[in-house]
Amino acid sequence: MWREHSEVAPEALSRVPAARADRAPKRPRVVILGAGFAGLNAAIGLRNAPVDIAVIDQRNHHLFQPLLYQVATAGLSPAQIATPIRRILAKQRNATVYMETVKAVDPSARTVTTCSRTLGWDYLILATGARHAYFGHDEWEAFAPGLKTVGDATAIRARILTAFEKAEASDSETERARLLTFAVVGAGPTGVEMAGAIAELARKAIAADFRNIDATSAKVVLLEAGPRVLPSFPPDLSEKARRQLFGLGVEVRVSEAVAGCDADGVTLQSGERIPAATIIWGAGVVASAAATWISAHSDRAGRVMVAGDLSVPGHLDIYAIGDTANARGPDGRPVPGVAPAAKQMGRYVARHIAARLRGRSLPAFAYRDLGNLATIGRKAAVADFGRARFSGFPAWLVWSFAHLWFLVGFRNRMIVFLDWAWAYATFDRSARLITDQPDARR
Amino acid sequence: MWREHSEVAPEALSRVPAARADRAPKRPRVVILGAGFAGLNAAIGLRNAPVDIAVIDQRNHHLFQPLLYQVATAGLSPAQIATPIRRILAKQRNATVYMETVKAVDPSARTVTTCSRTLGWDYLILATGARHAYFGHDEWEAFAPGLKTVGDATAIRARILTAFEKAEASDSETERARLLTFAVVGAGPTGVEMAGAIAELARKAIAADFRNIDATSAKVVLLEAGPRVLPSFPPDLSEKARRQLFGLGVEVRVSEAVAGCDADGVTLQSGERIPAATIIWGAGVVASAAATWISAHSDRAGRVMVAGDLSVPGHLDIYAIGDTANARGPDGRPVPGVAPAAKQMGRYVARHIAARLRGRSLPAFAYRDLGNLATIGRKAAVADFGRARFSGFPAWLVWSFAHLWFLVGFRNRMIVFLDWAWAYATFDRSARLITDQPDARR
Repeated sequence: MWREHSEVAPEALSRVPAARADRAPKRPRVVILGAGFAGLNAAIGLRNAPVDIAVIDQRNHHLFQPLLYQVATAGLSPAQIATPIRRILAKQRNATVYMETVKAVDPSARTVTTCSRTLGWDYLILATGARHAYFGHDEWEAFAPGLKTVGDATAIRARILTAFEKAEASDSETERARLLTFAVVGAGPTGVEMAGAIAELARKAIAADFRNIDATSAKVVLLEAGPRVLPSFPPDLSEKARRQLFGLGVEVRVSEAVAGCDADGVTLQSGERIPAATIIWGAGVVASAAATWISAHSDRAGRVMVAGDLSVPGHLDIYAIGDTANARGPDGRPVPGVAPAAKQMGRYVARHIAARLRGRSLPAFAYRDLGNLATIGRKAAVADFGRARFSGFPAWLVWSFAHLWFLVGFRNRMIVFLDWAWAYATFDRSARLITDQPDARR
Repeated sequence: MWREHSEVAPEALSRVPAARADRAPKRPRVVILGAGFAGLNAAIGLRNAPVDIAVIDQRNHHLFQPLLYQVATAGLSPAQIATPIRRILAKQRNATVYMETVKAVDPSARTVTTCSRTLGWDYLILATGARHAYFGHDEWEAFAPGLKTVGDATAIRARILTAFEKAEASDSETERARLLTFAVVGAGPTGVEMAGAIAELARKAIAADFRNIDATSAKVVLLEAGPRVLPSFPPDLSEKARRQLFGLGVEVRVSEAVAGCDADGVTLQSGERIPAATIIWGAGVVASAAATWISAHSDRAGRVMVAGDLSVPGHLDIYAIGDTANARGPDGRPVPGVAPAAKQMGRYVARHIAARLRGRSLPAFAYRDLGNLATIGRKAAVADFGRARFSGFPAWLVWSFAHLWFLVGFRNRMIVFLDWAWAYATFDRSARLITDQPDARR
């Protein structure tokens, strides 16, 4: 009888998926931690590989981070730039998604432990990204939040809109001025975008809605410790960005380092005090804890140092990609912490694993620079495509189309396009909701 | 010299808006508490009246509450059904909006005190709405949240989606069954809509996204203490609604009162236990504290008893409207707690005040019943227009157009229409974001 030949009762066996049953040929298991641009592209790149993939993320959605500043400034709704990870991978039958928080990684046992389970892996891909960094002043975070998650964005949106609300209700001129001052720390792409978007919000979108305050008098101060805005761009484009920011009414102050942030404003290292009810942090990032999980060598920003094939030295089957990795191209130049680089690293690691499974090898990862774009406001942007550099409306058009194009999902693209077209024609902001309650108003 | 004739320096005077200056003829001040359907319509109804209006709301947005269940079930984004109050009243120059929480009302001094200021009024309109009621069991709220605000909706959305996520990650069959059971308490319109929408979410929108669970096996239980669903509808439509719910896979249990709610499920008065990770409360509402503010006579639900002209007996210049009022028509029938009634009450009070200012009077408020609609799901609804009663797809079409029509703002209408058209064609849900973190995942 069948039952005598087998140690497992047939009823039990029928409940076990084929890949898990002992007799089925075991497919290598790839565990991907993080479903940002890097992790998600690694998963998608492995869609035809003979592997079982587990994607673990502490959130249920993939976020199109380049447009997050528009959620923070009430231009877009969170659902327009965030898509459930499961939905993106719904048709990829070799991928399973878990919404879980990673507690530990054991490189020798080859396991990942989350709050509820331990998963084994044959290949591990670390793609857990980065958070904003306060350079040893974590106490500033409460007063100067950064912008990395949907929750960050809706919280910042609530702060900005609440500042206008409180100013409208205030009888004190000094307090009004403080409430209508917005300090943005750091003039990288995020800081420049935030400063430009807040200025436009105040000058255009909401100006007509108030009775007691003049919203157009709001002061947006962009503080940069270095000598120019957008330091990752060539100096001539930095200068053009500065001029476009000036045109929007942003006060740009370079070579001004921040010495302190508190509930009432910002103190500069010069000793100068800027009273500001709203401070937004865009000054730096630090990598996730991935390096400490596997006790890997990391740089000062906490990023895992990786080999040319993006594997972690000493751990051939562990890769680190995206903002959590410190990678260098074959030319020795560092791979920048931008979305296209994260995507390319994800796709590369997928190809690398697929090649290894076929017993082949792959040349080292080389970042293909597709150009550098930063937006400043309506019709204002800078674009650097090596020899072709431009700014203003043409750069803004390129930026818009590039971002719409890469936005996940056709439907989101369509709705965001309509929202932009509407906002462009009317200066209207669709998502001016205070849903996070910054104080005890709830 | 001018300065000698005046106690106010001319520089100071020039800063005071005309209406506030002592020499300008003083216009009567109308303070409206609450910018729901009732309060907002009172404000809009007074747009041409010679009054100064202050609208005070603790939130910055007016909410189209009839579609809130779609935010809770990931069909719409909050910004699609919520509009900043200031934007709605931006062009109405006699209205000023304050986002503030009311602390006290003094009927004899004719003032309202908020956290930051005291405002005087000549006419006061109480339109502060209602909250869900737990019939003396407020401890149930933590386990069985109700649906009144955007925050409620995103919190419920997070609970529902997290239940599926946890089920996917669970290895215990008992726990999975509990995670995939959704109990909805109360079969009024909100309960019926929620039950139908959760069933559709599980059976259609997300079924393909999971690997370890069968989302279509999710159990939605609708519990009603009374003998039938939708008690405000005629019995034949209740029966049609029950059949449509059955068709969507909802388990409808009437004459079953709830004896307890906790973290693991619901206990019925029969002693039966329903293990359920997600419980949603739609069983009853209680009015805001407005009656206690002015020590007015109120009914058991806390609603202010009002006269035929919606004024509060003993306080000729105070009106109560919307869900915070207990009003009866000239025929003695109670005015129902629905959006059209709230709007009509708001418009009536605006006309009533305008008439009083001209020394005229107005007949008592009479509710004009425009019909009663409730939706159950895709293509499923019931409609009661007195002699014309229908259900199914025609009722659903009427419901859709009625709700789109009354949704504030053309742009929202267009975007929501596109979202619905897309969802209808593809069963897709656009807003499946877990942004509130129900446990310490953050």
